[in-house]
Amino acid sequence: MTTSKRSEGSSIWPIAIGDVERFDAEADVVVVGLGAAGASAAIDADRAGAEVLVLEAASAGGGTSAMSGGLIYLGGGTPIQTECGFEDSADDMFEFLMAASGPEPDEAKIRRYCDESVDHYHWLVECGVPFLAAFHPEPGLESPDESALVYSGGEDAYPFDRMVRPAPRAHKPQIAGTAGAFFMERMLAAVDALEHTRILADTSARALVVDGDEVVGVVARQAGADVTIRARGGVVLCAGGFVLDDEMVAEHCPEAARVMMRLGNDNDRGSGIKMARAFGADVQRMNATEVALPMTPPRSLVSGILVNARGQRFINEDTYYGRVGQEALFHQDGQVYLIVDEALAVPNAVGNRVTWVAETAAELGADIGLPEGALEATLELYNRGASEGRDPVFHKAGEWVRPLTGPLGAFDFTVENSIYATFTLGGLRTSVDGSVLSLDGSPIPGLFAAGRTTSGVAALGYSSGVSLGDSTFFGRLAGESAAGRASA
Amino acid sequence: MTTSKRSEGSSIWPIAIGDVERFDAEADVVVVGLGAAGASAAIDADRAGAEVLVLEAASAGGGTSAMSGGLIYLGGGTPIQTECGFEDSADDMFEFLMAASGPEPDEAKIRRYCDESVDHYHWLVECGVPFLAAFHPEPGLESPDESALVYSGGEDAYPFDRMVRPAPRAHKPQIAGTAGAFFMERMLAAVDALEHTRILADTSARALVVDGDEVVGVVARQAGADVTIRARGGVVLCAGGFVLDDEMVAEHCPEAARVMMRLGNDNDRGSGIKMARAFGADVQRMNATEVALPMTPPRSLVSGILVNARGQRFINEDTYYGRVGQEALFHQDGQVYLIVDEALAVPNAVGNRVTWVAETAAELGADIGLPEGALEATLELYNRGASEGRDPVFHKAGEWVRPLTGPLGAFDFTVENSIYATFTLGGLRTSVDGSVLSLDGSPIPGLFAAGRTTSGVAALGYSSGVSLGDSTFFGRLAGESAAGRASA
Repeated sequence: MTTSKRSEGSSIWPIAIGDVERFDAEADVVVVGLGAAGASAAIDADRAGAEVLVLEAASAGGGTSAMSGGLIYLGGGTPIQTECGFEDSADDMFEFLMAASGPEPDEAKIRRYCDESVDHYHWLVECGVPFLAAFHPEPGLESPDESALVYSGGEDAYPFDRMVRPAPRAHKPQIAGTAGAFFMERMLAAVDALEHTRILADTSARALVVDGDEVVGVVARQAGADVTIRARGGVVLCAGGFVLDDEMVAEHCPEAARVMMRLGNDNDRGSGIKMARAFGADVQRMNATEVALPMTPPRSLVSGILVNARGQRFINEDTYYGRVGQEALFHQDGQVYLIVDEALAVPNAVGNRVTWVAETAAELGADIGLPEGALEATLELYNRGASEGRDPVFHKAGEWVRPLTGPLGAFDFTVENSIYATFTLGGLRTSVDGSVLSLDGSPIPGLFAAGRTTSGVAALGYSSGVSLGDSTFFGRLAGESAAGRASA
Repeated sequence: MTTSKRSEGSSIWPIAIGDVERFDAEADVVVVGLGAAGASAAIDADRAGAEVLVLEAASAGGGTSAMSGGLIYLGGGTPIQTECGFEDSADDMFEFLMAASGPEPDEAKIRRYCDESVDHYHWLVECGVPFLAAFHPEPGLESPDESALVYSGGEDAYPFDRMVRPAPRAHKPQIAGTAGAFFMERMLAAVDALEHTRILADTSARALVVDGDEVVGVVARQAGADVTIRARGGVVLCAGGFVLDDEMVAEHCPEAARVMMRLGNDNDRGSGIKMARAFGADVQRMNATEVALPMTPPRSLVSGILVNARGQRFINEDTYYGRVGQEALFHQDGQVYLIVDEALAVPNAVGNRVTWVAETAAELGADIGLPEGALEATLELYNRGASEGRDPVFHKAGEWVRPLTGPLGAFDFTVENSIYATFTLGGLRTSVDGSVLSLDGSPIPGLFAAGRTTSGVAALGYSSGVSLGDSTFFGRLAGESAAGRASA
């Protein structure tokens, strides 16, 4: 498929090679975007012997990966897991991710991701990313210290704890607190050390160059002008997601538009997805988004109960806050409140405080605006089980279950008034080896992709660390595939 | 955009006109598919002076429209509404559809659909579709007699009854019971009576023929061979939805795969969507599906309470059963039960009966497998309000609210064990006049579409009659647009 007239007036359409006057640069593998996926693609393409050119829209690499917490989802028995005393296997990891990522997760990708996860851990270490073998007990978020290991997907909470042996799998690079910037610093250093890899910064790919059915390069904007770059082996799109493209968000995942914090850098506008679709690439799960509701820390808050606008509970509060966020936004219309007693009424880490305080559940419900009688009924049922340390309805773990009595308070965790955070999980449909698939299911020759430009391991669910995890893992495979095509 | 090599091996890719040896037929307007949308497109294209050729994959026209109940959503003060004593306005209709079809409904389409709805009623009558001015009080479903008018979207139930003056808008053609076959009989007779319109049956369009950026025809399969048809003005894709394409369902709306009854004919496999996407067309809301849970009639059953797997209520039971179905499947995991007392324990119209009977709520909850104490808490709260004829939590109308006491029963309305019905609402992105929009938002010259090949008025919500309503309404506009292009 080639474009002719349509490409003149519009930036996303592919350019036929016959219409290219000259190529301004050339490489075996052209990587678009220098976040975690692009860096990984470049490293393994270079190591496979390819000459690599990386185009980065910003002035320096890092992308949204550098703005992240830095958690990387790895398991199956990594040295860090083992040293911290946790047993894990590739099969357990597979079973968990299949259950947590559905419906219809990508079994082939998850299988390979799990089977080669320990190897991938070592690859990251070889790239210069260190991990400290220490377990941090507060789940979901990166540790404040240098500890690597945390639970990050509700593995140790209902329902997953009953399906498969729980193991913490989020690995944070060894630095105190948020680790995304440090992680990408190390990855970029690894890219800089490559022998056959160059980076063109301030260069935004906008369209593919094609020869018949094959991708042979890209057109990019650089200092206000087009530059045309030939890719002898292939183009690897690692250009991020689309959370900052309002039109795409409205069209594909309108709920995300309600979320206060969109996790992305200025170039997360779907450019990679757009230019590939314009050449017949298929997309997958464009409605999928991660949604975090950072209710904790402190962990003690999960002893409260989350209720919806009808005063009903809807989830075990001790699960991963990304599950809480998706459930709250997608199924409870983003109208949720955390009911606590006096002992729990402390501000959380992002500064939320109780908005309402009342002597009784009836008064508190009325203050929030819940239907008459609803909160009382919910609390009565909860407290009855809680007095025995049980949560028969939602199965919160016993350690967090105790009756809520005396004066009560409520945190306002409605999506309008509270910090939710989101990024997109949908994107190009790719094969396990990173080939972009066309609308008829066949690989598009010369076109590869990884990271949030694609739909990956997370499918519709999410666990912290899966995005950096699959970006690096499948970024490598995409880079290798493109390099292999160059040498063939 | 044209294809070259890729089209040889794969059926959906467009064929460049230069690769067409000869055209087997030619017309001003080529309509693909002869359901409600295709018939309407043909009629108005023909009336606009175009020579029309209609391709139908089956041996005769009708499509899924002929398998439907035949309700058509019309309002703004049709003669039928007026004669039945209901006041309505285009603005009321607009306000209702905007509220019922979100999030992010297509305001421009809804606006025009409402503003011209009375005209559209008269157009249908002129096509030979009669309506009897009688109101049937059982909402949601077509009347068993010849009455035209029913409520079909929860207009008279919470929350819509508080937003906008309720009016019934589903108009059923005048025949007893299900009216889809009769409706299409009349529409096909109107098509047969056209002077410049021919029908090619047993002819399945598979790909577009293109000249540069313009669509100039289609390639279709006929008796095992390709035929190539030239469209001087345009191609109008009215080829139905994709509910019977397992792969598309799994990819775009996996929940629909769980539903027992997929409303579609054998050709609802997304062929129109596929061939247009292969030429750079955009799609919208591919995850949207109608989901009906035909719990009633009898209407008395809405005096029961619907509960989810936690024994919680989740909706006012007196709303449109398509809202109940979407809520049950999308937000309650398809695990819902209708709790009734002895007086209500009668079989419903599709043969569902109570599966469990017990003396107390505790026993019934245990029999169903609900969490301990949950159903008792829900019933106690419900009965407290109901003893005063009120439903403070979900706002079911007073006439359906009374305490449920004595021996209780439960209908099993889980998606696995009960008849839900679904069809797809997502499809090509079109402008109000029926142009198919490309990935960059511009109209694709020569390509039009309507009906369930497109995303239409229903967006993510649904009200019975909207699909035939927007198929006929926007089918006409698409046909006129294509005809206008032929004469230009």
